[in-house]
Amino acid sequence: MNDDALPPARAIEFWFDFGSNYSYLSMMRIEALATARNVRIVWRPFLLGPVFRQLGFENSPFVLQKEKGAYVWKDMERQCRKYGVALTRPSTFPRAALLALRVALYGANEPWIGAYCRKIMQLNFADDREIGLPEVVSEALGSLDLPAQHIIETAQSDANKLHLREQTEAAIRRGIFGAPTFFVGDEMFWGNDRLDDALDYCEAMSRRDR
Amino acid sequence: MNDDALPPARAIEFWFDFGSNYSYLSMMRIEALATARNVRIVWRPFLLGPVFRQLGFENSPFVLQKEKGAYVWKDMERQCRKYGVALTRPSTFPRAALLALRVALYGANEPWIGAYCRKIMQLNFADDREIGLPEVVSEALGSLDLPAQHIIETAQSDANKLHLREQTEAAIRRGIFGAPTFFVGDEMFWGNDRLDDALDYCEAMSRRDR
Repeated sequence: MNDDALPPARAIEFWFDFGSNYSYLSMMRIEALATARNVRIVWRPFLLGPVFRQLGFENSPFVLQKEKGAYVWKDMERQCRKYGVALTRPSTFPRAALLALRVALYGANEPWIGAYCRKIMQLNFADDREIGLPEVVSEALGSLDLPAQHIIETAQSDANKLHLREQTEAAIRRGIFGAPTFFVGDEMFWGNDRLDDALDYCEAMSRRDR
Repeated sequence: MNDDALPPARAIEFWFDFGSNYSYLSMMRIEALATARNVRIVWRPFLLGPVFRQLGFENSPFVLQKEKGAYVWKDMERQCRKYGVALTRPSTFPRAALLALRVALYGANEPWIGAYCRKIMQLNFADDREIGLPEVVSEALGSLDLPAQHIIETAQSDANKLHLREQTEAAIRRGIFGAPTFFVGDEMFWGNDRLDDALDYCEAMSRRDR
């Protein structure tokens, strides 16, 4: 497994944390958009908390800056309405989701990854559930008819735990400072507002390569 | 003059500073977009520096956070290409533009305001000129066949200087934390990425009022 290798041009890397509200907007849209363009998604769950701490922030800027924080939820309401996505402002924000992220990393190449990630995001941002709790992760997996206990045990292996720490370090190394972040090759795109641009770029690159 | 009065629904308030790179993107687009939709622009130049200091930042986040700063100029290159707008990364960033902003405030209701503001922005972000210098402001006004000396003298009056300080205080009072910011009535939209949404909202409101 070499996560630093460049993916092929016709792939988009999607770096996300389940606690990130703008990652939620991208999560609910990316698989349909990428499929329509025949673009492969490389799923890159990572821990946003250590990235913020590395940058000198003890919490999300949406918590530390009250003016921006107040605005963000107005913006989320409007954006969710625009995309037709449900929203209940989470009673805890940002929610830590360590186990859920470990499961996402373990399942990153599985056919169920998209459905699982959307389910966790919906539990957090539409249903206001505690996605940090093992039983909620288990419920999410179960709702997709997946063997929850087996997956959770494997996701909690030392190797997978280490892998998530390494992926988070890779995020810092690549200059990531927020989520969602997209990479197409070395080209970085930050924020849900750049998802379409990143996919456009991906298509343009693959046309150039033909 | 009561700047806190709500503008009519069919108007968009455009809060900007000439030093702000994302304000540049909106500046080059807003008049054509608003005209096409029959929306009136309320021009609101203000000083972004005191707003940042009020929030506890000694400079632009694009200067204080080096990862974000590096990204922003990549993003600007791509966005300028998308909109067909020229870009030379300014050798000084962010540029203070006190006199240029005072002139914009003095001329906010004049027919030349849009052309003047675009000219100053282009001098900063396309030509890398020192827009803080009186001779550059004078050159911008002269290029539009305006009486530069008279306008600059009036813009430097105590009343107009006070007006700019008051407008900046009004920005803080209204919860502005960056530029560009748009208001449609009390609804706030932050960033060039929300200009189209703000105009859509403006149209929807005016349809509702009919």
